[in-house]
Amino acid sequence: MTSIGILGSEGRMGRAIASLIEDAGLRLAGGIDRGGDAEALAEKSDVLIDFSTPDALEAHLAAAVANATPIVIGTTGLEERHHWLIDEAASEIAVLQTGNTSLGVTMLAHLVRDAAARLGNDWDIEIVETHHRDKVDAPSGTALLLGEAAAAGRGIALADASERGRDGHTGARTRGAIGFASLRGGTVAGDHSVALLGDGERIVLSHVAESRDIFARGALRAAAWLVGRPAARYDMQSVLDL
Amino acid sequence: MTSIGILGSEGRMGRAIASLIEDAGLRLAGGIDRGGDAEALAEKSDVLIDFSTPDALEAHLAAAVANATPIVIGTTGLEERHHWLIDEAASEIAVLQTGNTSLGVTMLAHLVRDAAARLGNDWDIEIVETHHRDKVDAPSGTALLLGEAAAAGRGIALADASERGRDGHTGARTRGAIGFASLRGGTVAGDHSVALLGDGERIVLSHVAESRDIFARGALRAAAWLVGRPAARYDMQSVLDL
Amino acid sequence: MTSIGILGSEGRMGRAIASLIEDAGLRLAGGIDRGGDAEALAEKSDVLIDFSTPDALEAHLAAAVANATPIVIGTTGLEERHHWLIDEAASEIAVLQTGNTSLGVTMLAHLVRDAAARLGNDWDIEIVETHHRDKVDAPSGTALLLGEAAAAGRGIALADASERGRDGHTGARTRGAIGFASLRGGTVAGDHSVALLGDGERIVLSHVAESRDIFARGALRAAAWLVGRPAARYDMQSVLDL
Amino acid sequence: MTSIGILGSEGRMGRAIASLIEDAGLRLAGGIDRGGDAEALAEKSDVLIDFSTPDALEAHLAAAVANATPIVIGTTGLEERHHWLIDEAASEIAVLQTGNTSLGVTMLAHLVRDAAARLGNDWDIEIVETHHRDKVDAPSGTALLLGEAAAAGRGIALADASERGRDGHTGARTRGAIGFASLRGGTVAGDHSVALLGDGERIVLSHVAESRDIFARGALRAAAWLVGRPAARYDMQSVLDL
Repeated sequence: MTSIGILGSEGRMGRAIASLIEDAGLRLAGGIDRGGDAEALAEKSDVLIDFSTPDALEAHLAAAVANATPIVIGTTGLEERHHWLIDEAASEIAVLQTGNTSLGVTMLAHLVRDAAARLGNDWDIEIVETHHRDKVDAPSGTALLLGEAAAAGRGIALADASERGRDGHTGARTRGAIGFASLRGGTVAGDHSVALLGDGERIVLSHVAESRDIFARGALRAAAWLVGRPAARYDMQSVLDL
Repeated sequence: MTSIGILGSEGRMGRAIASLIEDAGLRLAGGIDRGGDAEALAEKSDVLIDFSTPDALEAHLAAAVANATPIVIGTTGLEERHHWLIDEAASEIAVLQTGNTSLGVTMLAHLVRDAAARLGNDWDIEIVETHHRDKVDAPSGTALLLGEAAAAGRGIALADASERGRDGHTGARTRGAIGFASLRGGTVAGDHSVALLGDGERIVLSHVAESRDIFARGALRAAAWLVGRPAARYDMQSVLDL
Repeated sequence: MTSIGILGSEGRMGRAIASLIEDAGLRLAGGIDRGGDAEALAEKSDVLIDFSTPDALEAHLAAAVANATPIVIGTTGLEERHHWLIDEAASEIAVLQTGNTSLGVTMLAHLVRDAAARLGNDWDIEIVETHHRDKVDAPSGTALLLGEAAAAGRGIALADASERGRDGHTGARTRGAIGFASLRGGTVAGDHSVALLGDGERIVLSHVAESRDIFARGALRAAAWLVGRPAARYDMQSVLDL
Repeated sequence: MTSIGILGSEGRMGRAIASLIEDAGLRLAGGIDRGGDAEALAEKSDVLIDFSTPDALEAHLAAAVANATPIVIGTTGLEERHHWLIDEAASEIAVLQTGNTSLGVTMLAHLVRDAAARLGNDWDIEIVETHHRDKVDAPSGTALLLGEAAAAGRGIALADASERGRDGHTGARTRGAIGFASLRGGTVAGDHSVALLGDGERIVLSHVAESRDIFARGALRAAAWLVGRPAARYDMQSVLDL
């Protein structure tokens, strides 16, 4: 049975991953947090999952490379120099780095890109998301990721096309715009909908997260997929063969 | 068979009403537009429907009163003095005035008020609407009407509680706020949803208009209901006995 | 702080209630399961919540009455004789019995009844629900409860109006029918939608359960509400003042 | 400006096409119905659109071939021998035949196939559709088309996997099943949703038709696309380059 080593085991994601590991048909090799021995963990694990902090990344990659252990990196807040380190490690081992480990969101982004590419500019694109009352920013990162997918499908830059925070006398919609709207309330884990609105018809592509566990499940699925892959840098789209 | 006289018969609403009159089991007495003879129309009609202009209102009400013909007023852009004229006429004949003749929207507003009143402030209220790409203002008048219903249910003023155009670093949601968001695209006649979001559960109350014909249908239903009523001022809620 | 005694503390609902008690601003007095001392628990509790088995009901009610402790009963599978016992106890203490402790579902059923009563038979009623892949019956109990609310609003018996399991050559819809459809898949805790479909417009009244915790939360809310009430039999609608 | 010849000009689709031709930036060459001169129409048209009857197909194809005029065939009820005739004509001219001319539905079917192929059997697939109260069969043809797309994505036969008309004690969902449910009411032109339900998350892919005009619009778009294409048999997916 594939064994998982968790880097950042005491964080919210680390604990969620540990609790779902058995359901996923995998085994926990162990976990470390700040100050733990990454080398020892890499040695006894078939694959590592890192949801710790950017400043720990260099040591974690070194431990992975030294033991030829593949590694999934879900740590957020990475900067350019971290991406260089990842590229370097990826020449020796399989590394999967992603900002969103949900399989459903990854799939949805792919579908949005495809639909936006084929339907053309006379289909208007609108993205609406709902999150719990305590979320402090809008739109959500996932909504922006979906907007990037739509913009990529159309071959434009999202920054040039966004319509956000509509209120008051807005005038008619700009042709080719990608609109965003955000709802906040209750304890919603995250709903996202991308509508493509044509003359007399609409396509709506949605994702509903029942809880944040889906990010842990997706990370485990990515880890299982990564075992045995050749040295290279992968992303979540690779897992779904997109 | 009840006969309908249309004031403003050449406008978009006037023509829609004329085209749906038979389906509603009613009969067209006739119609006039700018410069037509309102007195003669009132005499031969069982009930009048007015979707003309505010400046024609005084003459239309006089014709209705002179012939003891009840009248439905859907004209928009009324000012305070028009409402005085309506109150005056309503002391002699049955007058129904409304800014929204849709039965479904009227019903929804009633349900929203009721739910907001009973669920209390720990259920967050969010209103989202979608309209066609040519709509120039946001939120829609109907969304604001639904917001007023929610605010009335809670015994607060909507103006003190509105959260509109969320974008960027918004901070956590304000307790008791009523949020609004607007989507624009395609040829959507009008979708409205009011969500009440609690801990672990949500109620969503929605209305979908397939076309703008619903406003004509609702006006006809109001007209049929108004025939034989005692002199008074009525609104759409009266038609549904709300 | 109001203290809660749990009857059936080892069951799924009993454990969910215990875990949410603090969030609800309440205190756990204690809990018993099969064979525990109900008298002692009733004595030290401000209010009891019973999610045990029908055969334990008589002893639980006796303990509640002997200590003048109000009791919420969410136990399912009650028969006629259990309802007699509840009525008897309710002459001496406050008893709230319900088959569904969700506040949102209770509210929704009230709105459905109201809408069905006022909109009339030319609005078709359709109920659709989604539950996880392991649910073995269809429609869900909550869907039937909502159907009963719609039928009550129209003054008809649900059994005479149900259209279930549409498939193949069904013929046109029967006027006045209440349709049901069931979706199954994934891990959905429970989505319910009641649509009222008129000419050119629709009202859709929905409830989304994020997890089954809402039943525990609703039971706690009911318990807090019950403390200090006069002897009588209550239901969830009482809690929302419906 | 491309000129359109309509075969079956007096039918519901023929009239809808004629009324939308100018909006689409095209020109009406003419139209014929039962007994009209297809040869003369083919001669003066840049492209033909046929929404007539299967028994007229042979003559219509002959007229198209004789004049080297491309033809869109949306006629329903075709049998095997009609498809042979189409294949034969397609060796000489461009012929596009389809059972559903909606661009949105065509796009959605493509997305459903793609998602079903990549997500695998641990994502349950459920299809729900809503149509007006007079529809006599269930599920809709479009729902079955979407089901076929899902089945094709999974490499299975739809007939072996369908779960239809759930009611009563159904038992747990069968792994790999594709479920169908049908709602009927009001005047709904056609809503379709395909849900893919995984552990803790869902993707929902939907299409909303505001009116049946979308089929006429799609036929016009297909006709404009067909002009100048080499002799071959095409379908709606070709128009979207799917």
